[in-house]
Amino acid sequence: MASVDLNSDLGESYSAWKMGDDAAMLELVSSANIACGFHAGDPAVMLKTVRNAAARKIAIGAHVSYPDRAGFGRRDMDVTAEELIGDIIYQVGALQGMARAAGTEVRYVKPHGALYNHIAQHERQALAVIRAIKLVDPTLMLMGLAGTPVLALARAEGLAVIPEIFADRGYTPQGLLVSRREPGAVLHDADQVAERMLKFIRTGMLAANDGTELRIAAGSICVHGDSPDAVNMARAIRHLFVAEGITVQPFA
Amino acid sequence: MASVDLNSDLGESYSAWKMGDDAAMLELVSSANIACGFHAGDPAVMLKTVRNAAARKIAIGAHVSYPDRAGFGRRDMDVTAEELIGDIIYQVGALQGMARAAGTEVRYVKPHGALYNHIAQHERQALAVIRAIKLVDPTLMLMGLAGTPVLALARAEGLAVIPEIFADRGYTPQGLLVSRREPGAVLHDADQVAERMLKFIRTGMLAANDGTELRIAAGSICVHGDSPDAVNMARAIRHLFVAEGITVQPFA
Amino acid sequence: MASVDLNSDLGESYSAWKMGDDAAMLELVSSANIACGFHAGDPAVMLKTVRNAAARKIAIGAHVSYPDRAGFGRRDMDVTAEELIGDIIYQVGALQGMARAAGTEVRYVKPHGALYNHIAQHERQALAVIRAIKLVDPTLMLMGLAGTPVLALARAEGLAVIPEIFADRGYTPQGLLVSRREPGAVLHDADQVAERMLKFIRTGMLAANDGTELRIAAGSICVHGDSPDAVNMARAIRHLFVAEGITVQPFA
Amino acid sequence: MASVDLNSDLGESYSAWKMGDDAAMLELVSSANIACGFHAGDPAVMLKTVRNAAARKIAIGAHVSYPDRAGFGRRDMDVTAEELIGDIIYQVGALQGMARAAGTEVRYVKPHGALYNHIAQHERQALAVIRAIKLVDPTLMLMGLAGTPVLALARAEGLAVIPEIFADRGYTPQGLLVSRREPGAVLHDADQVAERMLKFIRTGMLAANDGTELRIAAGSICVHGDSPDAVNMARAIRHLFVAEGITVQPFA
Repeated sequence: MASVDLNSDLGESYSAWKMGDDAAMLELVSSANIACGFHAGDPAVMLKTVRNAAARKIAIGAHVSYPDRAGFGRRDMDVTAEELIGDIIYQVGALQGMARAAGTEVRYVKPHGALYNHIAQHERQALAVIRAIKLVDPTLMLMGLAGTPVLALARAEGLAVIPEIFADRGYTPQGLLVSRREPGAVLHDADQVAERMLKFIRTGMLAANDGTELRIAAGSICVHGDSPDAVNMARAIRHLFVAEGITVQPFA
Repeated sequence: MASVDLNSDLGESYSAWKMGDDAAMLELVSSANIACGFHAGDPAVMLKTVRNAAARKIAIGAHVSYPDRAGFGRRDMDVTAEELIGDIIYQVGALQGMARAAGTEVRYVKPHGALYNHIAQHERQALAVIRAIKLVDPTLMLMGLAGTPVLALARAEGLAVIPEIFADRGYTPQGLLVSRREPGAVLHDADQVAERMLKFIRTGMLAANDGTELRIAAGSICVHGDSPDAVNMARAIRHLFVAEGITVQPFA
Repeated sequence: MASVDLNSDLGESYSAWKMGDDAAMLELVSSANIACGFHAGDPAVMLKTVRNAAARKIAIGAHVSYPDRAGFGRRDMDVTAEELIGDIIYQVGALQGMARAAGTEVRYVKPHGALYNHIAQHERQALAVIRAIKLVDPTLMLMGLAGTPVLALARAEGLAVIPEIFADRGYTPQGLLVSRREPGAVLHDADQVAERMLKFIRTGMLAANDGTELRIAAGSICVHGDSPDAVNMARAIRHLFVAEGITVQPFA
Repeated sequence: MASVDLNSDLGESYSAWKMGDDAAMLELVSSANIACGFHAGDPAVMLKTVRNAAARKIAIGAHVSYPDRAGFGRRDMDVTAEELIGDIIYQVGALQGMARAAGTEVRYVKPHGALYNHIAQHERQALAVIRAIKLVDPTLMLMGLAGTPVLALARAEGLAVIPEIFADRGYTPQGLLVSRREPGAVLHDADQVAERMLKFIRTGMLAANDGTELRIAAGSICVHGDSPDAVNMARAIRHLFVAEGITVQPFA
């Protein structure tokens, strides 16, 4: 019987500002990337989100970021390895504190935004993130974009990894995400996206934007879209999977 | 053979700003109250400080604060219990992450500045701090001002506590600190302070500012002064203790 | 011909977080209290908001706050006069920079949240706010709760003031706002609120929660509610006023 | 009679952290680059520094930065033009508020740290800074590294500029600063540096690190070193200038 992990960004509210429909998403996903206060989230939001995720047996991940709340973690920053190691340990540790308070534990680390994109390709910061994870808890897994060098680097350093694909993003024939500056970067039709993911689960193949069929190994599907339709898309995917007998549950 | 714990605030540098002479203090104290980023400290400073403290077998405490870096945590804030619980778990968790990364562990929590003073006397925030500690790790001890209600409250809630006295502060006949707005609030003569602490260790008695002898039960002496002479005073105390056969070591 | 000023909080979005329906509110009010980055708003949001307000000839006010984004400026803080003077000049100056960039100017200062409530009754911080305004630009007016001592204090110090009433709040027989912890604090029926305001404009009288008729001198009506219905309520008030021949325009 | 402007970074203290010896520097320089709170400084520090500078007829400049206090503005950030324009107007406006409060005015803008280096060479962010200055106050001058493209760009856009050289930095034969990663980046001998600057004032020529004589047009000399000897070096330069009949005064 096939199973699949669906992950989404959660706990991105901050202070008096609300973001996303966490209550709805928590009914749909099996893994929660929880903001740790550097780009989004705050301690009260983190505790509430961790508790809600734990109550649903959802796997908890630390959604770590550059220290850039003003830019929502979306701006590339030229941080030193020493700074980055500290920042990652701090965020992971804080979320682990929340997890203990909620009677659960953190399972994985997923860098956010600009940090996610930066380490996918650049070794210096990638190694700093890997080093930080090994220092704070070497049993934590690293979630990253399927096919990018950071995952091989992490494996070589002894970390378990969770390669992920993005449900609502177009792919180039090279297996990279289509840039947001180009057409086809974001897919908007929930049903088509759900069918695309179903096919991927069954075949391991994903069509690139020129029709090429890409073979991708992935352990999770990110259903977090930036559009207001994120919940609808996650729901379409989950419902189709359930209807087709595919269990939605955390990565092994 | 008598022994005593000396504690001091450490890791209060931040970004490009330096504060205090941590290298010197680390040779003198047995417990380190390490800033957790809310009033002082940053992740890189925290990691370095925890490592240096661990290398000297110094007990590590989380020096938690209101979220007020702009005021160095010295301004009373009317936070809700929910906010405070989150803020404490976040800071303790972050420092525990640093401690794991350094192969050591956090032993206690000491609130900083305005939060320290507020919870010493006010039950609502005191209970929130106690609740947070119990949630994140009920084996953590709470360090607070000897004789204040928060310590009895913490004991009643099942936490172990470390009552402390301040080496360089004057005391009222009621056993409270002399307000900084009044004369005699801060003692400046290092040798006199050292003698005063020696007498306290031997007798459990401390002279108030009117000559009254106060009986105080304390498990630690805070040697962190705000003056530039903090290191000199800590050194005078330690040297006198060692000369008199009193071992400086972490609280039991 | 009667005229009245309607004011509302605007520019409270921050980074990737949206708050309020500024586009709708800008069509309804005549004065905009623009967040200055300490509790809400950021530079890009401020510039956009000032430009949009200027394009509609809306009077621009600096919505200044304690430095507490994490608490949205809603937590009382025990800041010193020196700190507060600096914080107010900084925020007002920043917004004046935005106003110059947009070819307009700042007309008034309205403290936000906990600072608003604190200075309404406490002289030390009230005087610091007044002092700051006089230093940065003595032609700026101070907007505050009608009937509170801060306004008399400001007048005595030479500032012009704009006393305001709150459209959707209940009043005690003493002319104070009913505490949010008590029933009747917030009025929810937009049409009733509009009628209440119409009566106030015509008679200068407002019914307290025990039926007492209060005589209040006010130069502006705050139509910013915390409820999602803020826009509906502002619309009901404006439409009724326009229908009754009352012009909505900035305070003289 | 020759005259020269000496500029230095001032007002870099923050909250409880002190940085630099502003009292000493204020006796030596003729222009003060005052931190605006994004990398250093806070409102109370800004007001005090502006007042002290005004009392000595020192020209006041806005030392604007990326929003990165945690990295002291030393980390390159990939900000958008819209964000940068807002951030610059905000900081300049805030300092202008302080200047009005002190009865003086801001004369120029000098970007700090990573932003300074970035815009020296990259047009997108350079144009955003120039655009912001023109929006907030087109009479403000832009201070930048002599010979870099940003100055030509600013002139073409209608801004007056102040090209500066660094007293304690080595130069390449191309007129660029020797990278800090290479030998000869920083000059440490105060007397040699003073002689080097004297020769520059008299001849307009500066020796590169290979002996090449560079002709540089500069309107100011930056005497802010990162070393603890910054004050000594500034003093050596000023004293030599005064002894040689060169007046230290703000750029025309």
